[in-house]
Amino acid sequence: MAADRPHEFELIRRYFAPLATDPGSLGLTDDATVFKPAPGMELVLTKDMLAADVHFFAGDPPEAIAAKALRVNLSDLAAKGARPCAYLLGLGLPDDWSASWLERFASGLSGDQAAFDVALIGGDTIRSGQSLQLSITAIGEVPEGTAVRRSGGQAGDLLYVTGTIGDAAAGLKERLDPGLLSRHGLDEAGIQHLLTRYLLPQPRVRLAGTIRLHASAAMDVSDGLLADAAHMAKASSLSLTIDLDKVPLSAPMQVLQGSAPDLFLSALSGGDDYEILSLVPPEQTAAFEAAALSSGCPVTCIGVACEGEGAISLMRNDQPLDLETIPGFRHF
Amino acid sequence: MAADRPHEFELIRRYFAPLATDPGSLGLTDDATVFKPAPGMELVLTKDMLAADVHFFAGDPPEAIAAKALRVNLSDLAAKGARPCAYLLGLGLPDDWSASWLERFASGLSGDQAAFDVALIGGDTIRSGQSLQLSITAIGEVPEGTAVRRSGGQAGDLLYVTGTIGDAAAGLKERLDPGLLSRHGLDEAGIQHLLTRYLLPQPRVRLAGTIRLHASAAMDVSDGLLADAAHMAKASSLSLTIDLDKVPLSAPMQVLQGSAPDLFLSALSGGDDYEILSLVPPEQTAAFEAAALSSGCPVTCIGVACEGEGAISLMRNDQPLDLETIPGFRHF
Repeated sequence: MAADRPHEFELIRRYFAPLATDPGSLGLTDDATVFKPAPGMELVLTKDMLAADVHFFAGDPPEAIAAKALRVNLSDLAAKGARPCAYLLGLGLPDDWSASWLERFASGLSGDQAAFDVALIGGDTIRSGQSLQLSITAIGEVPEGTAVRRSGGQAGDLLYVTGTIGDAAAGLKERLDPGLLSRHGLDEAGIQHLLTRYLLPQPRVRLAGTIRLHASAAMDVSDGLLADAAHMAKASSLSLTIDLDKVPLSAPMQVLQGSAPDLFLSALSGGDDYEILSLVPPEQTAAFEAAALSSGCPVTCIGVACEGEGAISLMRNDQPLDLETIPGFRHF
Repeated sequence: MAADRPHEFELIRRYFAPLATDPGSLGLTDDATVFKPAPGMELVLTKDMLAADVHFFAGDPPEAIAAKALRVNLSDLAAKGARPCAYLLGLGLPDDWSASWLERFASGLSGDQAAFDVALIGGDTIRSGQSLQLSITAIGEVPEGTAVRRSGGQAGDLLYVTGTIGDAAAGLKERLDPGLLSRHGLDEAGIQHLLTRYLLPQPRVRLAGTIRLHASAAMDVSDGLLADAAHMAKASSLSLTIDLDKVPLSAPMQVLQGSAPDLFLSALSGGDDYEILSLVPPEQTAAFEAAALSSGCPVTCIGVACEGEGAISLMRNDQPLDLETIPGFRHF
């Protein structure tokens, strides 16, 4: 039951050693890596696992699978205000892995390493015994004591989100039911936009410094806007009121809002957005918005924090909206 | 395709939050953990993945599966001379996971956390879509610049190994072919010893300080003594000569040496020992042996490093032994 070691060493040498550009990683020739934060900094560590046909489709382009596995981790770091430094890759290969697949997978990592200035510093490659399994531990850095938590918000803070919401969840619905979005009036460009948003998250790495300077609490939106807002409300022991009319929408999601209201609402509460949800004190909002804009990452105010018991409430058309009416919203 | 989140949050709260005893881990309620080495220290990071029916048997006791996943990582840290501090756990659950299984798994981690003084600081729990998949990233600490590498040995250094070799590989052979060891003359106690050595590695955590003080190179033996010695020879650009007659054997392996010579030799070159292989300069050997003994972890000198090209050579009965005669030895 030992892993197929000759393969493992050769594939590390061929595909992964070139990604290990940090001297501490020793070209992945040792069992462990030495690492330390720069003076005055501390590390932020996060680990996300992804399984074939659970978190991505096994047949997706290998470059995209690699990028998604890395990016969902970078998204967590950005939400904590951390600059990404390095990552360890756990790769559980199915029995039918091929060199060409792995070459494309490594090339996806290589492209993202350049895009996001991170380096592979270690990891492990095994036979998973079954489907492709990925596990990345990403390491970021923040000045000591400045990591932004889910908790930390205060009543009166304003709730912001980056980018647009619901695109990836709508893209996933199309993957599971091809033709669905076309039947609801989306054109090919709109459908492609949503599919790409599902396939390739865009972690808001460039917003990390702005989050650190101006946000009282932050987290990335991976389980859906409403569920994650509920997590943040609970962590901060606040109530968060979200005005659904203010939630930023892409053009295709605006079409769906009219043509498929239930699908639209369920996408809003879907997942895989990898946008950042932040609470920002009122006196910081102008600086926060300006800094976000200048970093190329627009933010939208979608609500406010009030004294409360860790729940969320929704408004629509200036009226309270019962959470129970949101298709697919999951309670915790 | 989203993970079954209500389950995930509840199981983290119930089973894993109690393991997160470090304040930086925030009871696992955030997306990331803040961590930094103590002043003057640097981190050693390692990551080992394990898959059901590849690295352990799916039906093994959950406590043992948990302990093995953690211990194989602690073994890597010990071989680098690092004191273990913390770990992140990636847990890919099969669809048929049960609360009672998970409770026992968490209890296995809890016992090892106490035994080895480490704490869970983060991780991720997903549906694997298939079999149980584990990925642990372990973090250790060493004084800056003192981590011990696979490389670093010099000609004339003596080659040491901890504990006994081949037990786990013989135990695995019994798991795959029940009755095998009995047919070769082992009694029940001997068989149980070998089975336990396979099921539950004993990482040489207490030897870390001794390795750091006295070894010029070290690594743990996970792929088999001969294969890993070959890795070390290559990393240090040395030749390593191993005297097979000096390789430390448990009593059951001594029986097999006589009753089943081929099985014995293939176990010697098998894997899963999780002992530590070290090169020690001649002037350090007395201190190394004394320190190892006083830490309750005896070491045995099994060979010597010579000028060479990164290969190993074997001696038996004072004669050179052709590597090709070792059943199951894998070339790289």
